[in-house]
Amino acid sequence: MSNNTPSTKVLPGFMELLPADQLLFNSIKETIRETYESFGFSPIDTPLIERAEVLLSKSGGETEKQVYRFLKGKNDLALRFDLTIPLARYVSEHFHELAFPFRRYHIGKVYRGERPQRGRYREFYQCDIDIIGKESLDLMNDAEIPSVIYAVFSKLNFGKFLIKINNRKIISGLMEELGIKELSVDVLRIIDKLEKIGEEAVCEMLQEIGITEEQSEKIFAFLGLSGTSTEIIEQLRTLGVTAKQFALGVNELECVVANLALLGVPEEAFMIDLTIARGLDYYTGTVYETTLVDHPEIGSICSGGRYDNLAKKFTDKKLPGVGISIGLTRLFWQLTEVGIIKNSATANTNVLVIPLTEDLSTAISIAKTLREQSIATELYAEKAKMKTKLSYANKRGVPYVILVGEEEINTGRYGLKNMETGEQVECTIDELAENLRA
Amino acid sequence: MSNNTPSTKVLPGFMELLPADQLLFNSIKETIRETYESFGFSPIDTPLIERAEVLLSKSGGETEKQVYRFLKGKNDLALRFDLTIPLARYVSEHFHELAFPFRRYHIGKVYRGERPQRGRYREFYQCDIDIIGKESLDLMNDAEIPSVIYAVFSKLNFGKFLIKINNRKIISGLMEELGIKELSVDVLRIIDKLEKIGEEAVCEMLQEIGITEEQSEKIFAFLGLSGTSTEIIEQLRTLGVTAKQFALGVNELECVVANLALLGVPEEAFMIDLTIARGLDYYTGTVYETTLVDHPEIGSICSGGRYDNLAKKFTDKKLPGVGISIGLTRLFWQLTEVGIIKNSATANTNVLVIPLTEDLSTAISIAKTLREQSIATELYAEKAKMKTKLSYANKRGVPYVILVGEEEINTGRYGLKNMETGEQVECTIDELAENLRA
Repeated sequence: MSNNTPSTKVLPGFMELLPADQLLFNSIKETIRETYESFGFSPIDTPLIERAEVLLSKSGGETEKQVYRFLKGKNDLALRFDLTIPLARYVSEHFHELAFPFRRYHIGKVYRGERPQRGRYREFYQCDIDIIGKESLDLMNDAEIPSVIYAVFSKLNFGKFLIKINNRKIISGLMEELGIKELSVDVLRIIDKLEKIGEEAVCEMLQEIGITEEQSEKIFAFLGLSGTSTEIIEQLRTLGVTAKQFALGVNELECVVANLALLGVPEEAFMIDLTIARGLDYYTGTVYETTLVDHPEIGSICSGGRYDNLAKKFTDKKLPGVGISIGLTRLFWQLTEVGIIKNSATANTNVLVIPLTEDLSTAISIAKTLREQSIATELYAEKAKMKTKLSYANKRGVPYVILVGEEEINTGRYGLKNMETGEQVECTIDELAENLRA
Repeated sequence: MSNNTPSTKVLPGFMELLPADQLLFNSIKETIRETYESFGFSPIDTPLIERAEVLLSKSGGETEKQVYRFLKGKNDLALRFDLTIPLARYVSEHFHELAFPFRRYHIGKVYRGERPQRGRYREFYQCDIDIIGKESLDLMNDAEIPSVIYAVFSKLNFGKFLIKINNRKIISGLMEELGIKELSVDVLRIIDKLEKIGEEAVCEMLQEIGITEEQSEKIFAFLGLSGTSTEIIEQLRTLGVTAKQFALGVNELECVVANLALLGVPEEAFMIDLTIARGLDYYTGTVYETTLVDHPEIGSICSGGRYDNLAKKFTDKKLPGVGISIGLTRLFWQLTEVGIIKNSATANTNVLVIPLTEDLSTAISIAKTLREQSIATELYAEKAKMKTKLSYANKRGVPYVILVGEEEINTGRYGLKNMETGEQVECTIDELAENLRA
């Protein structure tokens, strides 16, 4: 090792876990994957590297400034910063080979060279599902998506969660009604801050962009609507807004909420929240956010919505879709921070076989027998002191240990030790697997 | 879509699969992962981006020339081109938090900007296991690694395979004995071509670098040894080679082969092959290659070996290790080429529910009931003609379909149609899950 030894630290903004945490991370990822599959979503796996022109638009939004972009030979390349543009490219490229509606899931890493700060990652997993229609896509799909959210977070068991649903046509319709359609984007951006800065500050900001007091009042009357889903829908209909978009949005929202109940999502797991708008330009109908009831500070853990046209950059085909994304790397960090995910030291190995004699053949044969019965088994093969062997078992976090000494080999009876309770059961080789399974 | 529409094709040298193939690919990857875990290997997942100085050595080998390297701000970065250097960095960085021997698996993408050609990929999955010791690592581990290879390819069921084992100390010892130690690297490089170019051509090449006829004869006598493992070991011992390295290598090989049998790997699945050398500088003892008996043209499908020191670039700690790698992307391509993997059109969805009435509520409730019983269920929600609906079922490749029409709703009996055989079973909602499971 010289003075020129490179730093072995991961780059700032990159997550690297120890094996026990990695197991936990992977098990969450696997639960999400399994659930996505159980709803009939198919996996895709696109290259991390794309042509820069595929990923970047001419305008160049905030996210695009953060893109990792580089030349390889004369090729202008970039690392994907989301899974949506690769989906758009994929669907356009394989259009004729896919069955529509195309239901895909994609779990993979994406890259954004953000300024590093606590809990913000430059490399992170996104777990996305989308349903893409050809020309049209039934509103039923807008209800199925949150039923997937419900299944995912029920299984993950991170505590009580709430799926908040809205429809952007309703807000658009209201703006149209108030004659401030052209200010929509600004108004939505200001309303988005409501929870953070409060009603008064929002009112002032609205005035600054030219919203009258009367208009403001109507906006707040709208945002203030509350009650059950049925009650909110009713109240929306009595507001007297005549813009077509508004009525359309209310009807869609009503339909989504009704189907959501039919799909088995219980009342307490979802609500209409008229303040939710999501990324302003992209979504065109239903939008979702999901929050942990006891940890609102985490913000939305799963968001998405309906869009009119996935891939207009790549194809003339009209491809409406609806989808959601879970930013798993950040979520894992947040859940660890608030203590919902606890640093565990459990290994994926069920049992560690520790030979105490020089001849390893009995220990080997025990490991072989257990593995044949699908029990994840590790064999400690190093020549070491007893203390070193047990300290390995502890550090590794294996739940069970089998010591194989001369006495055990002679009597054919082995002690199966529970490393947590210290309890030990004596049994034959054949009984070991049975006991481990119980 | 304008004239400036970017190409939606993947870049040359990148693999992108359709969903049915992706499912197949993923199931192979999952079998490998499960097997690795069953032997007590823990997962790690390191960043794809590393500091260039971590990945690249001053000398800069062939592989390093192919590296994707770029600046982000003032950081000199690169995409990993294998999983070994990231492992070396990981072990050095987390040395005090890891339990040794450290058994890790890593399944992830790596990047090499090779000249694109059929079956060569610039982005590909590697599936690696390694066991890293602190200061020392018992030879037993050299036997456990091929027992993992055996388990993996038994489960994958690609046909008969053969694990070829050698020990580089034997060849090194022979070279020492022949007084051509300094020519070792060249000799090994030439011998490596034996299968390709034949004995005569090899002889000529050996002469060209200054190997005498007598030396050549001894080398060929050595390479020509054959028989069972026991026979080869015996013959090696009667060659009369006195170099220490040679005897050490023979002893190690004997021990590995004996333990391999104890670990339950049958005789017909492995053999000693003295011609195997592997990457010349890295490995220092046991080396492995694995071939498909009926498809030798594919070459090695899983290779690896023992090395003395994993991370001397990063740490003063001595970290001997042994490991293997499966290059899954290329292997998948090769297996498809020779017809071992067959393009399947099977979906991961077990059943597709197709409503025939406008009111979807019964169909929804069937989907809900099936999903609750862990049956991957898809609901076709689009308003479409019967023909479109069935054509979706066919294109999607779902094995079962349930049609939900007015009659079915009224009688409470639903037809469960096997899409392959065309057979149809009539049953109640409750019986659907039972039938699907059977």
